[in-house]
Amino acid sequence: MDRINQPKVKPYLLTRSLSPENQETPIQFIDADMIPDKLFYRRNHFSYPAFSYSNYFLPINGSVSKPIVLSMQEILEFPSKTIQIVLECSGDKRSFFEPKLFGEQWEKGAISQGYWSGVPLRTLLERSGLSEGAKEVVVEGYDFGERTDLDKVFTFARSLPIEKALHPDTIIAYEYNGKPIPFKHGYPLRLIVPQWYAMASVKWIKQIRVIDSHFTGPFQAIDYVYYPHKETDQEAFPVTTVNVNSTIQKPLDMDILNTGMHEIKGIAWTGQGVISKVEISIDGGTTWLTAKLEPSKNNGYAWQSWSYEWTVSKKGEYVILSKATDSTGRPQPTDPFWNRKGYGYNAIDHVKVKVE
Amino acid sequence: MDRINQPKVKPYLLTRSLSPENQETPIQFIDADMIPDKLFYRRNHFSYPAFSYSNYFLPINGSVSKPIVLSMQEILEFPSKTIQIVLECSGDKRSFFEPKLFGEQWEKGAISQGYWSGVPLRTLLERSGLSEGAKEVVVEGYDFGERTDLDKVFTFARSLPIEKALHPDTIIAYEYNGKPIPFKHGYPLRLIVPQWYAMASVKWIKQIRVIDSHFTGPFQAIDYVYYPHKETDQEAFPVTTVNVNSTIQKPLDMDILNTGMHEIKGIAWTGQGVISKVEISIDGGTTWLTAKLEPSKNNGYAWQSWSYEWTVSKKGEYVILSKATDSTGRPQPTDPFWNRKGYGYNAIDHVKVKVE
Repeated sequence: MDRINQPKVKPYLLTRSLSPENQETPIQFIDADMIPDKLFYRRNHFSYPAFSYSNYFLPINGSVSKPIVLSMQEILEFPSKTIQIVLECSGDKRSFFEPKLFGEQWEKGAISQGYWSGVPLRTLLERSGLSEGAKEVVVEGYDFGERTDLDKVFTFARSLPIEKALHPDTIIAYEYNGKPIPFKHGYPLRLIVPQWYAMASVKWIKQIRVIDSHFTGPFQAIDYVYYPHKETDQEAFPVTTVNVNSTIQKPLDMDILNTGMHEIKGIAWTGQGVISKVEISIDGGTTWLTAKLEPSKNNGYAWQSWSYEWTVSKKGEYVILSKATDSTGRPQPTDPFWNRKGYGYNAIDHVKVKVE
Repeated sequence: MDRINQPKVKPYLLTRSLSPENQETPIQFIDADMIPDKLFYRRNHFSYPAFSYSNYFLPINGSVSKPIVLSMQEILEFPSKTIQIVLECSGDKRSFFEPKLFGEQWEKGAISQGYWSGVPLRTLLERSGLSEGAKEVVVEGYDFGERTDLDKVFTFARSLPIEKALHPDTIIAYEYNGKPIPFKHGYPLRLIVPQWYAMASVKWIKQIRVIDSHFTGPFQAIDYVYYPHKETDQEAFPVTTVNVNSTIQKPLDMDILNTGMHEIKGIAWTGQGVISKVEISIDGGTTWLTAKLEPSKNNGYAWQSWSYEWTVSKKGEYVILSKATDSTGRPQPTDPFWNRKGYGYNAIDHVKVKVE
């Protein structure tokens, strides 16, 4: 009847839906700067695609000088680069809008980071060449299915403006954390677009097509658009760059704590510049304290861990806030930017605790 | 480069805290009537206890005719029984109180069910005999730790009134779903108290003590008490019997659906009698429809699965409600019973969906 003494305690992905599979990273319970692939959040529009991996080729066509079709072997032979990057779903934190908005009720965990390796998209486009009128690069995935609004089948496809496509850190990735990309995250090839919300980072790439017009696929022109008005589409604009943001990992909302020392800790990230400052409030925003930014080898695309040692002797209720500011001077707003589909939530983060 | 075609999709426990470990069952994503032990919700007050399993003995003492100490072998030799039973944490659904209450922010998954096997506590108490003044039976676990409010170390211990302790279905269990109880759920022995919230079902039993007074341990006299007032302890009463309740498993809150047929499904349970009726509303409570109760071999302690085939042709927003009534005539209330520590939430369940 002997048993192992202390059982393992570990966090799991948090299931939002299974069909398609949408699961959150348990971000409050993760210390690592490199999310293991099993805890990387999963965001799918459709069921997982079936296609031939053993006979995989990548076509690059459209407004190019010379259409090409690359084998995996050819792709692996190009000079590669590895970048540490945050990927965040644009619906991350949607559940915090008040009143609630329709769609996946993500809390704080539709975000992960790690090391992606691959060949710059630029390198491949230099090989195919670009026609003179080339405006956008459409990357299409193998995943497809019916949309509830259009009653028609679509593949998941997104475009990048030429300048973003040619950015040297926009890569066609084939490895995550030094290993082939796990199937659920886009094997064998995934587009990785630093600094943009992750809908741009198309998985299971089927083809790359250069166009001389604006792409109007539904995942570009209907979804992933900020609609600031409830009833009309006026003033709509596309979801692109990740907003400056922060998340308190510890303590948890509605925690009950002892008096004494507590570490307040979390992460902050932005799609524009780097995080320059994280401020903490323990009195609901009346006064602000500067959090300590952890040393990091941040290349500019990773999140910034931060912490604050809080010593509390007075019993009572406290509202703890975190507010990040990036190097462009953008701070997190007090209130979220309301938009009908619930994208880009980045209001100041808060948790309430009771000290007894 | 060949890979398995369709990757597996499965739900996981939902992490509320790791120290101590509190994880929810992904109840919306589970069809089974018997929750596999890996998906059984975990509720701990302290870290997992370390004690000698290989040299395990169960003492029964206090106000008894003859104190006894039973070996596992002796316990296994008594006639056993197996009961299918719902265990629900009394804090289940705490996160739905408005405004929020302190404590673990359980959503709908601090509930699980399966088959527990063991020997009736009554059988063991017949062996030890009871003194004349015996009033309560205190069951103490091996788990212990410091409380935030009292700054003192306590073991987790709870008492049952004699009549509940002698109920033939109150058992000292040693198996869950036909296998030894997993360590995280109370190995080698766990008290199982049908129809009461699960704080009564003490894990890792260290000893059983009969007393002739009222037990006043903090998990009996401070926690697991309904406090109806914010500032005073007036009119407080203990948490015992599970309230009549229901949970909508499908659709999910804030889902976006197609027009057409959708199955609305869920579970209902009660600690008093059985579920006699589940009603559904798809118009926010104006009209009610009778859900179909699935046939079950319900022995009176298990939940009742229910479903309703909803055909919707008109686009728009819908608030779906579920209301269970048990055989004692108790229906779920429209509003939750507010109490300071957030126990026993059982208001009518609701989800909002959009049909497009």
